Amino acid sequence: MNGAQAMLRTLVDSGVDVCFANPGTSEMHFVAALDSVPRMRGVLGLFEGVVTGAADGYGRMLDRPAATLLHLGPGMANGLANLHNARKAHTPMVNVIGDHATYHKALDAPLESDIDALTGWCSDWSHISTRPEEIGADTARAIAAARTSPGQVTSLVLPADTSWSAGGTAAEPIPVPAAPKVAEDAVAEVAKVLGLGESTVLLLGGNAVREPQLRAASRIAAATGARLFTETFPARMERGAGLPAVEKLGYLSEQVTYQLTDVRHLVLIGSRPPVSFFAYPDKPSELTPADCTVHQLAEFTEDTVDALERLADRVAPDTAPVLAEASRPAVPTGELTAQTVAEAIGALLPEDAIVSDEANTSGLLLPMSTAGAPRHDWLSLTGGAIGQGMPLATGAAIACPDRPVISLEADGSAMYTISALWTQAREQSNVTTVVFSNRSYAILRMELQRVGAETTGTAAAELLDIGRPDLDFVALAGGMGVPASRATTAEEFCGQFSKALAEPGPHLIEAVIPSLL
Amino acid sequence: MNGAQAMLRTLVDSGVDVCFANPGTSEMHFVAALDSVPRMRGVLGLFEGVVTGAADGYGRMLDRPAATLLHLGPGMANGLANLHNARKAHTPMVNVIGDHATYHKALDAPLESDIDALTGWCSDWSHISTRPEEIGADTARAIAAARTSPGQVTSLVLPADTSWSAGGTAAEPIPVPAAPKVAEDAVAEVAKVLGLGESTVLLLGGNAVREPQLRAASRIAAATGARLFTETFPARMERGAGLPAVEKLGYLSEQVTYQLTDVRHLVLIGSRPPVSFFAYPDKPSELTPADCTVHQLAEFTEDTVDALERLADRVAPDTAPVLAEASRPAVPTGELTAQTVAEAIGALLPEDAIVSDEANTSGLLLPMSTAGAPRHDWLSLTGGAIGQGMPLATGAAIACPDRPVISLEADGSAMYTISALWTQAREQSNVTTVVFSNRSYAILRMELQRVGAETTGTAAAELLDIGRPDLDFVALAGGMGVPASRATTAEEFCGQFSKALAEPGPHLIEAVIPSLL
Repeated sequence: MNGAQAMLRTLVDSGVDVCFANPGTSEMHFVAALDSVPRMRGVLGLFEGVVTGAADGYGRMLDRPAATLLHLGPGMANGLANLHNARKAHTPMVNVIGDHATYHKALDAPLESDIDALTGWCSDWSHISTRPEEIGADTARAIAAARTSPGQVTSLVLPADTSWSAGGTAAEPIPVPAAPKVAEDAVAEVAKVLGLGESTVLLLGGNAVREPQLRAASRIAAATGARLFTETFPARMERGAGLPAVEKLGYLSEQVTYQLTDVRHLVLIGSRPPVSFFAYPDKPSELTPADCTVHQLAEFTEDTVDALERLADRVAPDTAPVLAEASRPAVPTGELTAQTVAEAIGALLPEDAIVSDEANTSGLLLPMSTAGAPRHDWLSLTGGAIGQGMPLATGAAIACPDRPVISLEADGSAMYTISALWTQAREQSNVTTVVFSNRSYAILRMELQRVGAETTGTAAAELLDIGRPDLDFVALAGGMGVPASRATTAEEFCGQFSKALAEPGPHLIEAVIPSLL
Repeated sequence: MNGAQAMLRTLVDSGVDVCFANPGTSEMHFVAALDSVPRMRGVLGLFEGVVTGAADGYGRMLDRPAATLLHLGPGMANGLANLHNARKAHTPMVNVIGDHATYHKALDAPLESDIDALTGWCSDWSHISTRPEEIGADTARAIAAARTSPGQVTSLVLPADTSWSAGGTAAEPIPVPAAPKVAEDAVAEVAKVLGLGESTVLLLGGNAVREPQLRAASRIAAATGARLFTETFPARMERGAGLPAVEKLGYLSEQVTYQLTDVRHLVLIGSRPPVSFFAYPDKPSELTPADCTVHQLAEFTEDTVDALERLADRVAPDTAPVLAEASRPAVPTGELTAQTVAEAIGALLPEDAIVSDEANTSGLLLPMSTAGAPRHDWLSLTGGAIGQGMPLATGAAIACPDRPVISLEADGSAMYTISALWTQAREQSNVTTVVFSNRSYAILRMELQRVGAETTGTAAAELLDIGRPDLDFVALAGGMGVPASRATTAEEFCGQFSKALAEPGPHLIEAVIPSLL
């Protein structure tokens, strides 16, 4: 058995059986080994940002890692932005980065680079495996690290000679300890705070936005009067009819300041004190009110279900959670706008959908319009690195082939990793992509004003305008094998959206809308 | 004057007057400042890999830097692969990476990351400019570093508060010393070697593949019997009728071994001893023959024109260079193949063209078919990080708007940075893109065999097949505003290629060909 085969066997024996890949020459033995380890499913991406974003989507949905296969430093570089998002999402993931043979590195061949700098940039755990005898054990350690609560991005560098040399030994899975439970003191302190009757907010982050945590938090809120918020960009939030409806903290610091007005106690569960996304002249970056005390019930690494349920059993033993009732907007008609698209999605969202949300400014109205839609999972842009949405949807569809995936994309963001559509076509994934086509970096038009930058001419405006020429997403999708259509009225959009959901395989709808801003 | 304005004024005062940009919120003051410094031309890219690759193409053509504008660590991450190529090409370039305000960084907002790790990965020089009073001087230093012979990739991190705060002061250009001349001893040693009458090769690398160096090298070769080669992937080679024709070292180590058979002396001019691109089991990585002595006439940082002319004046005072005669293949007819496309390009290449070559396996026949075509510049994939070609062509066209640019792309490589087409459409650049559409990662099929990897099933083959579904490059180009056509015969290709060259603005031709391998 060579090193590559030992690595693949270790991966599948530990339950890692999907590998999103964009290989090169140094990965050819790993690729060849796929034929001898058929339990591993290889999924090809045409660009590394698709590969890493898909692994993020997969890991968020299943709470277990996929592998990626990347080609030396430059290949990893192309995947970094979505690894940044995955790390902020605490997604379990095992990246395999092929490298030159160990003896070849010192020669500084064209593709040589400092891979350590890149793995360090985006990984919670990384290692270079220089001997085939160790690759199995190293892989098992990488998987265990990836599965460490709540999930970690791990990177294992695989030199070509480790991969091709004989002597590989597969390793058994390493047991991973459960998430640690919080101390009784932490629960008691928060219970005491809740008993004061002062304005209190519970801020849910990390994995505390899933159903068990939301139900416990809702009981606590109902019994004590505390208010609930989630962090602004939850990795995967379970929501919709039958689940507690919890508002997110806003993207704009002004919104957060408003949401936290007069709050005296902020209780963190898997979250951190809120900070503004960017700094702005003469605006605060730290958004916790000055006279508010912060209490940490549970870190993001800890068992947030247990912590919230123990707290609920203490302060709300007889209180039921408040669940969202089924409620949808009317099917819209007339002009197609960010609002009518949001209404249409709320009106037509199918049961058990997965929503990948990179709609940016065009998506501001979506949380409201979908709050009472059938139960669904909502995936957000966790690290702010745009180009996440389409790859994330692709990986979520591989993870959950029986669920409909809705990929909501801003036109500007769509162009970073557009070739995700090709992988969706190849895998015949059930992804319906909606591109909000407002032909501008609308968020930057807003930000240009918010940062107080003065413009006097057209040079600045040119850089925020992505019309001239207009992008034709119907043609782009068709060029990658994804059936597509363009909607310019609400009726057209609703018809196309319903049809896309009714048919298997990927579809794309370009929703031509005016910019909200 | 705020920091951003001081930076922009310093850039244009030093002759850096094009900025390829993909900005975000933290760069809004830089963007706004474009309105107050109209000498700076902003060119928008929809993805950072386009931005950095375009700056590389610009710098290679003009031997002076363009600026880039990138959005924090994740934005820079997306541009890294082409910065890797630029660094290997020794391209002068000034990257401006917007960052969070200095006081905001410790808060670990979503887009926060270790930018130092990234700038260090790909830069010859980098710095963080934390005060508006220093930004002008820092910018002048970055430009001077970028212009240091033969060119360097520099990165200047611009925190948002440095950008927006008052107190900015523009700085004067810093004089840059000329490339150092080599010692007389080095010239004398090589002259002595050339006098031995033993088999000798001059290996030209770095900027020693430009006309003055090639003419001097040709004189030396003609007078002494030494043979000439260039390194495998020259950054910008001047070639064609009226210039000395110099063969490149091959991509495959077997080719290089053959080319260097029985060579006793290897003279390096701006180059390094040849190594194989990848390591292969049981094949050598270092390709200099065992009994060959290596002599360094000039390092890549040194004045290669002066070194070669001094050597030529010593060993070939009365010898003229051997120049390629005008000679073109016949205009091909019949089946469209890698060979007939190469013949068509050789037959029709216009005067003074710039060729961006990322045709990979499909381009193996191009050097021969174009050797006697009208004089042109040939840009190669210097760092092996695919996704270079289309951005490079885009930047070359901005640098040289009056010259025709031919962008030769493999279909696999094209999908990494395809949105370069949109920038070409926006700027109405005279770029004719030829996509060699063989629907496979053909080079990897070859490499799978060469590395000795055994495959027994279909899983490996699947990862090298980029058909299913076929990419439709005519649709993709049309979706980004670039007129496009598909050629399936040599006649169609020649007609479409001639038409594209005759019309202003960008065009794309999808050349559907069988895989060479």
